[in-house]
Amino acid sequence: MARILVINPNSSIACGAGIAEAVAPFRFPGGPSVDVVSLTEGPPAIYSWRDWHAVVEPICRCIERETANCYVIACASDPGINAARAVTRRPVLGVFRAAVATAMARAERFGVVAIVEASKARHLAALRAMGAEGRLAAEIALNVSMDALLDVTAARDGLIAAARACAEAGADVVILGCTGMSHHRAPVEAATGVPVIEPCQAAAAMALGVAGASVTFDVPPHGANR
Amino acid sequence: MARILVINPNSSIACGAGIAEAVAPFRFPGGPSVDVVSLTEGPPAIYSWRDWHAVVEPICRCIERETANCYVIACASDPGINAARAVTRRPVLGVFRAAVATAMARAERFGVVAIVEASKARHLAALRAMGAEGRLAAEIALNVSMDALLDVTAARDGLIAAARACAEAGADVVILGCTGMSHHRAPVEAATGVPVIEPCQAAAAMALGVAGASVTFDVPPHGANR
Amino acid sequence: MARILVINPNSSIACGAGIAEAVAPFRFPGGPSVDVVSLTEGPPAIYSWRDWHAVVEPICRCIERETANCYVIACASDPGINAARAVTRRPVLGVFRAAVATAMARAERFGVVAIVEASKARHLAALRAMGAEGRLAAEIALNVSMDALLDVTAARDGLIAAARACAEAGADVVILGCTGMSHHRAPVEAATGVPVIEPCQAAAAMALGVAGASVTFDVPPHGANR
Amino acid sequence: MARILVINPNSSIACGAGIAEAVAPFRFPGGPSVDVVSLTEGPPAIYSWRDWHAVVEPICRCIERETANCYVIACASDPGINAARAVTRRPVLGVFRAAVATAMARAERFGVVAIVEASKARHLAALRAMGAEGRLAAEIALNVSMDALLDVTAARDGLIAAARACAEAGADVVILGCTGMSHHRAPVEAATGVPVIEPCQAAAAMALGVAGASVTFDVPPHGANR
Amino acid sequence: MARILVINPNSSIACGAGIAEAVAPFRFPGGPSVDVVSLTEGPPAIYSWRDWHAVVEPICRCIERETANCYVIACASDPGINAARAVTRRPVLGVFRAAVATAMARAERFGVVAIVEASKARHLAALRAMGAEGRLAAEIALNVSMDALLDVTAARDGLIAAARACAEAGADVVILGCTGMSHHRAPVEAATGVPVIEPCQAAAAMALGVAGASVTFDVPPHGANR
Amino acid sequence: MARILVINPNSSIACGAGIAEAVAPFRFPGGPSVDVVSLTEGPPAIYSWRDWHAVVEPICRCIERETANCYVIACASDPGINAARAVTRRPVLGVFRAAVATAMARAERFGVVAIVEASKARHLAALRAMGAEGRLAAEIALNVSMDALLDVTAARDGLIAAARACAEAGADVVILGCTGMSHHRAPVEAATGVPVIEPCQAAAAMALGVAGASVTFDVPPHGANR
Repeated sequence: MARILVINPNSSIACGAGIAEAVAPFRFPGGPSVDVVSLTEGPPAIYSWRDWHAVVEPICRCIERETANCYVIACASDPGINAARAVTRRPVLGVFRAAVATAMARAERFGVVAIVEASKARHLAALRAMGAEGRLAAEIALNVSMDALLDVTAARDGLIAAARACAEAGADVVILGCTGMSHHRAPVEAATGVPVIEPCQAAAAMALGVAGASVTFDVPPHGANR
Repeated sequence: MARILVINPNSSIACGAGIAEAVAPFRFPGGPSVDVVSLTEGPPAIYSWRDWHAVVEPICRCIERETANCYVIACASDPGINAARAVTRRPVLGVFRAAVATAMARAERFGVVAIVEASKARHLAALRAMGAEGRLAAEIALNVSMDALLDVTAARDGLIAAARACAEAGADVVILGCTGMSHHRAPVEAATGVPVIEPCQAAAAMALGVAGASVTFDVPPHGANR
Repeated sequence: MARILVINPNSSIACGAGIAEAVAPFRFPGGPSVDVVSLTEGPPAIYSWRDWHAVVEPICRCIERETANCYVIACASDPGINAARAVTRRPVLGVFRAAVATAMARAERFGVVAIVEASKARHLAALRAMGAEGRLAAEIALNVSMDALLDVTAARDGLIAAARACAEAGADVVILGCTGMSHHRAPVEAATGVPVIEPCQAAAAMALGVAGASVTFDVPPHGANR
Repeated sequence: MARILVINPNSSIACGAGIAEAVAPFRFPGGPSVDVVSLTEGPPAIYSWRDWHAVVEPICRCIERETANCYVIACASDPGINAARAVTRRPVLGVFRAAVATAMARAERFGVVAIVEASKARHLAALRAMGAEGRLAAEIALNVSMDALLDVTAARDGLIAAARACAEAGADVVILGCTGMSHHRAPVEAATGVPVIEPCQAAAAMALGVAGASVTFDVPPHGANR
Repeated sequence: MARILVINPNSSIACGAGIAEAVAPFRFPGGPSVDVVSLTEGPPAIYSWRDWHAVVEPICRCIERETANCYVIACASDPGINAARAVTRRPVLGVFRAAVATAMARAERFGVVAIVEASKARHLAALRAMGAEGRLAAEIALNVSMDALLDVTAARDGLIAAARACAEAGADVVILGCTGMSHHRAPVEAATGVPVIEPCQAAAAMALGVAGASVTFDVPPHGANR
Repeated sequence: MARILVINPNSSIACGAGIAEAVAPFRFPGGPSVDVVSLTEGPPAIYSWRDWHAVVEPICRCIERETANCYVIACASDPGINAARAVTRRPVLGVFRAAVATAMARAERFGVVAIVEASKARHLAALRAMGAEGRLAAEIALNVSMDALLDVTAARDGLIAAARACAEAGADVVILGCTGMSHHRAPVEAATGVPVIEPCQAAAAMALGVAGASVTFDVPPHGANR
């Protein structure tokens, strides 16, 4: 049976639990297993470029020791995605790229709600790698702690305001730019009338397509080690 | 229970069957239903711009008369996607956009294998609408009939050669640029070592994400009627 | 003698008359005839994507039954231009593309005044097809009915305000983004000091160049049926 | 009566005669006068950047001393167009920009046939100023003298081969990238099946639109002196 | 010993002195000589496109009569850089291009402070020639005379306000868009906390790299005369 | 006295020596000191994305413990440049970005000679961060070991062939895409007639501009920690 491995590169148990909750609807009888692991070697959260580089080695080691049909890196700055793709012949998805791709399939312009100002530069790097920066209508930073985001209500009003600001800037869908926020998705959508994309869910659905539509996935991406 | 409606805008029974076969792996116990309809008012296939415009009114009428949580337009030139989005508040996916988005999540550059030369202009229009034309490494036309494509072996060698040509031009994944070809996906992938994306499967997986992660989908895209 | 056929794809007699008035200055003794036809099968106006697709078949049939040296599709969203180019070997111009091209010859950045918000998406699609979206300084929608626009004075102040807003956003010329408004051109230009381009006139002048400079026009564009 | 002044910035009498021949079909009874002047202070031809800069002052002086409703700079590298626009409130067209704009209205990609290799950099500068470089399929230099081009037959075969090479590179129309070649337009079109745009004719038709559709043209472009 | 020749294309003695002051720190014992010449044939300042074209011939003649290992055109609109590169096989730098390049090495987005509104169009042309216009966060014009700029304090507050406005628009570094302002660099940097790039200094440092790292510089750029 | 610190992030003594040789011409009496350090914690060379991430922490620690007016990261894939800029208020240059910037100041299109195929993806990421990918004419990989490159003659012919291939693809200058190759610069330039840019030298010259033109450099880039 196919296995999808979702890697939370930080060491936060609460964040890992939020990711697990997000991807739970994608576990189907007869479908691929969807497992979530948190990296105990990782930092509590990825707030800086230094954190972003530091989690790459743990991610690569995790992929080397765990067998899966599809790996998902569950941090909204997609750390180490190129490095990870070079250590396995199986597909590796990043949740931010999956969310952006889903946004591009649903609308011409999208917005992103970031946890802190400093996340924007990492999102921008991912958007450039995808060739998608031209379709970012706006990115709004909440500038809150991850604990606030993980709380069911604490950051809700800020999220709704940020989603509305994205829509006013021309976004037709909004991406939650941090993991562990899936409990906010439906309420923000309901409050704003703007479709909201949760990155782990976007990646889980895409992983089902990758892992569920084929029996053999050990085919390497042509340019994996580039 | 959520329902995903996959609309084959042409009247070809064989093509509709091919689409149904492609999306079958995405029907899970407890998951959304995935129904496929072919439009009897549609042309046998969509070979020209005139065909492409002509199927829009039947697609819109189909959406108006059928209730679903997510609609999928299953023709690789995404006909009428803007018109369809203006007649429903539920999400509408086009299989080509879904395939391109999936390709962009998996690699920096992708190739497309088209059924005929004339398809390229319609694919290009969709890529421009997405802002994704810069990542098209190459598009190769097979210049065969749809009957040849639906056959299990007839066009296989041509497909493999086209996928290889895309890879040589820099594509790290290849998109099958026509529906009803899912039987070719795994063999072409195996022969070339290049991941192959089948558009109906990419859209079905994405539709699971859209329809399966939320209880209410009657939230309109902000700019749906633009 | 060469013949330029200007096709008004809607069924509005008043709109057809406005178009005829716009192109009248381009009928010269010894020059090509400039004929205007309105399509009785067309909708009263093109307000939606569904209308936009629906007029394509009537436009194609009109071109098939009428002989001309150059065809002009006189709706500012250029409906069916690719389809039309595939049914004739003679040149087919769209008035919006002709206006944008003229704007690009006269200035580095241009603005567009649209009749309604929903027109913007169709203009954007045409700009992308031309590769010209980067030079759109602003598009302002008047959100009025076509009847108001056809009136000599009703929408005048709104037009002037919109043209000024385009200029403030960096536009050095402004395009009237709807047909039948040629009576507004000179007054808006005079009031704002910004050159104003009327699409039917831009296309008529360009058609003179195409139809008047050559004796044989049955040369197909190389990629006409793409 | 409106007057269109076509300025040949070089001192070649033969070249000026070729330009006059090109624009002759655009003189209509009751239409604007179309006058051609050659600048005796100009160089025999514009082969270098130094020539290109040197003709700007003579062009500006010509515009200052001659009254017209629309000025056309008839050299395919559009020398001094910004400077010229700063010395008059009347519209100034460059023949290359007019040809490129016409090409963009007729097709998605175009080719250019240049007289010499060194012309390409000047054409590229004009394309960038227009935002149109993305639609240049190919530019082919003939590397002949202007005398050869002015001859009715001398460079014909080279032109046909260059136009074909442009079409093979994806051009759907071809621009003659030098003035005085209008006698080659129809034969190259006939030989290749690719529409051919002659810059002076494209500009003359556009000038008719500018000068013929309005009684007052002393309205300055908003950013004329930028 | 290598020689760097810095050419001030205007005839202002004060401006030439300001340039000499700017580049003085780049004269090192044992390093290349750094000479500054002002062109007596040039205009007092380069305020218009006409001025911009008129200084090209004097610049070319200066390069023809003066021997150097590297030439620097010291006007922030880089007049005649292509023409200059065609008259010598030695490297020719423009101070604006050198400043922009330095800005791109230091940050992702930069701002420019222009002397007058009309400078913006010339800066934009240079940015397009470099392919760098996408990274211009903002350009703010001071709209003062060059005399005011050359004064140590007169324009200081305006400069600081303009640099702050650039930073607010997203610039991480700011370029002084006129020569002769090096005395403003450190104070503006200190007042705003934003790194400030002085074009003549950026070019002088780059010229040291070009002239100091090699014994032979008579190697032509491949496309110098294009 | 100002100090420029050049950080070789790999542990190769030979590579560090090559870098020291490259920057030696930029040590002037009275000018800033130019010190080179190699990181003993670094890998022997940076061949993979994993290496690229792994050197970031050592680079950051080096900057934290060493005082300098300007830091230069001397690896042609610019590892950790964003992270480094967040740990110091002094300027941080990457040698690849400095080389690309210098190339853009000298010509419109450039080529890169890479040590191995896998370097291309890292160069591309840097080019995208700069907004410069549109000006890369070609990148050619030598696919040799670093030892071969450090040898005076071993890879010379391959380098010359690669530089020629870049020039044929339209490059007017060529960048050596690896450090420690400065001994190849002049010979390749002499053999090909194409200017060759050595990244450490380009960065050293630029660092002189940054460190030599100001007394105070503790001004943070505005967005350093983004």
